[in-house]
This record gives sequence, structure tokens and C-alpha cells, in this order.
Amino acid sequence: MQTLFQYNWQVREDWFRWCEDVPEEQLLRVRTGGVGGILHTLFHIVDVEWSWIRSLQGKPDFQESFDEYRSLERVRQLQAAFRPEVESFVGSWQHSMENQPFHDIRRDGTPVVYSWGEVLRHVIAHEIHHVGQLSVWAREIGKQPVSANLIGRGLVSPPRG
Amino acid sequence: MQTLFQYNWQVREDWFRWCEDVPEEQLLRVRTGGVGGILHTLFHIVDVEWSWIRSLQGKPDFQESFDEYRSLERVRQLQAAFRPEVESFVGSWQHSMENQPFHDIRRDGTPVVYSWGEVLRHVIAHEIHHVGQLSVWAREIGKQPVSANLIGRGLVSPPRG
Repeated sequence: MQTLFQYNWQVREDWFRWCEDVPEEQLLRVRTGGVGGILHTLFHIVDVEWSWIRSLQGKPDFQESFDEYRSLERVRQLQAAFRPEVESFVGSWQHSMENQPFHDIRRDGTPVVYSWGEVLRHVIAHEIHHVGQLSVWAREIGKQPVSANLIGRGLVSPPRG
Repeated sequence: MQTLFQYNWQVREDWFRWCEDVPEEQLLRVRTGGVGGILHTLFHIVDVEWSWIRSLQGKPDFQESFDEYRSLERVRQLQAAFRPEVESFVGSWQHSMENQPFHDIRRDGTPVVYSWGEVLRHVIAHEIHHVGQLSVWAREIGKQPVSANLIGRGLVSPPRG
């Protein structure tokens, strides 16, 4: 579980660095699919990860819109503000938390119960999915995307033997 | 770990069904990003998952090209052929396998050692990433993509309490 969060955070940093060489107009351009743009996607990833971690802890959610974060610098500031709480929660994850109940309300108003382990895996998959969209848009503007490889990043301690 | 494989297999089935309503010409069309097309991506996902599972077991790899699998039916047949071995391996996964060493050779010829747990997470992220690309191409042809949500699929047993 923690390895996949580490992977996402490393890939996200790579994308923030990737954005440094791309004109802001390209980062903000509305594109087909997902939430509709490169920087908007990075904002969405940061926002959704934090919102789920907050919700699991019963804390208030983030309610601002992308309109307030339309620059690389602002999205990075947002992630810097959110990261410590997310890292702390994920870092203190224990197997016993897997089946803790999280009570939510569906869009149609009906109640639903998820397990904490289900929510954390949802957050992991959410980011990887959106990063796949970034990789298509990167090619559309003629740039090589960030590598999505998980192996070779030194995320797992060397094996025995 | 197994939950994320179950997620990927369920989403993959959803995409195969999604493809049934799309003209084959659209499934085969060369597109920007990734391996360059919808059906080619599904072939690649099936191929790469099986190849890694085979490699971990020290068995020979699959060496065929997409040229032999240019129809939805043929890619589904390939996945039906590969699935039992993959399911068996993932289903028998135990925590003690996490740090088993896998000796590989990089493209530049240098040797490298990965842990089995690292390889399995790589396979998981690989599929989710490529499915993110499918979601952009789906919108390009005016169709709603398959949901990437992990929550709400009934993948995790109901929580206590």
C-alpha cells in the first residue's frame, strides 16, 4: 500500500518538474478527457487524495475550485500544504485499519459503507489513472511523458539473497 | 495487492464490453500516446501482465506481436488463454514472496535485481496507467469511458461494525 503511494508521489514530482518546461498556456489549455487539462489534473489529484484522507479522519473537506489555482506555482503550494497530513496518515497505516468502516453518502442520497482499505486503494488507482491521461496530452504537445515505470525507482528495499 | 488485480480485471472486462459497441476501425485506429490505439492497448495490458508472471516463475515469455491480434475476439481469446495462470499466481500470493529476488537484464545489458513485490506493483500500475489513456481516446470518439472508480465495485468485504 505505502509503496504505491510513494510511487504516486514520485511520479507526481516528476510531472511537476516536467511542467516547468511547458508554456503555461499549454498547461491550462482545455483538453479532451478526464478533468480537461494538464494542470487541472494535477490540482485534481492533489485535491482528491487529501479530501479522502481528511474524510477518513472525519475532518472537513477542501471545497475550493481550480479557478483559484491556475498556475504551476499555486498547485505546488497546495500540494506542499496538503502533503504532511497525507504522508502522516499513510505512514502510520497498519493492517488493522483495512476493515475500518467509512460511512459515505452516494450522489443519489443513499448511504454506503466502504472499508478504509478500499478507500486507500481507490485513491492510489485514481492518481495512476489520471496520470495515464497526462501521458496522452504530453504526446499531443510533442513532449515525452514522465515514465510510469514503478520498477527501477528504488521504492522497494533490495530483496534477500 | 490482490484487490488491485481484481480491480484491474474487472475494469478490463468493462473495457472489452465497451469495445463491443465501437466500430473495429476505431478500435484499430492509430492514436497519439501510449502504444497508439485502443485494441493495441488492451493487447499490451494482457501481454505484459502475463509476461511478468511468467518471468517471475522462470518460464518462457510471450513473443508475438499485435499484428496477429487485430480484432476484439482475438485479444479476448488471448486473455482467456493467459488468465488462469495469472489468476493462479496472484491468488496464491503470500507476504513471504514480497522480497523474493527477480534477476533481470536492463536494455543496456546491465544486470538488475527487483523484488517480486516490486514487480507485482509495477504490473498493477502499468494497467491502470494505460487504462487512463483509453479514457481519453474514448472521449475523442464521443463515448463515455468505463468508470475508473475502485470504490463501489464490491471488491473489499464489508467492514466491521
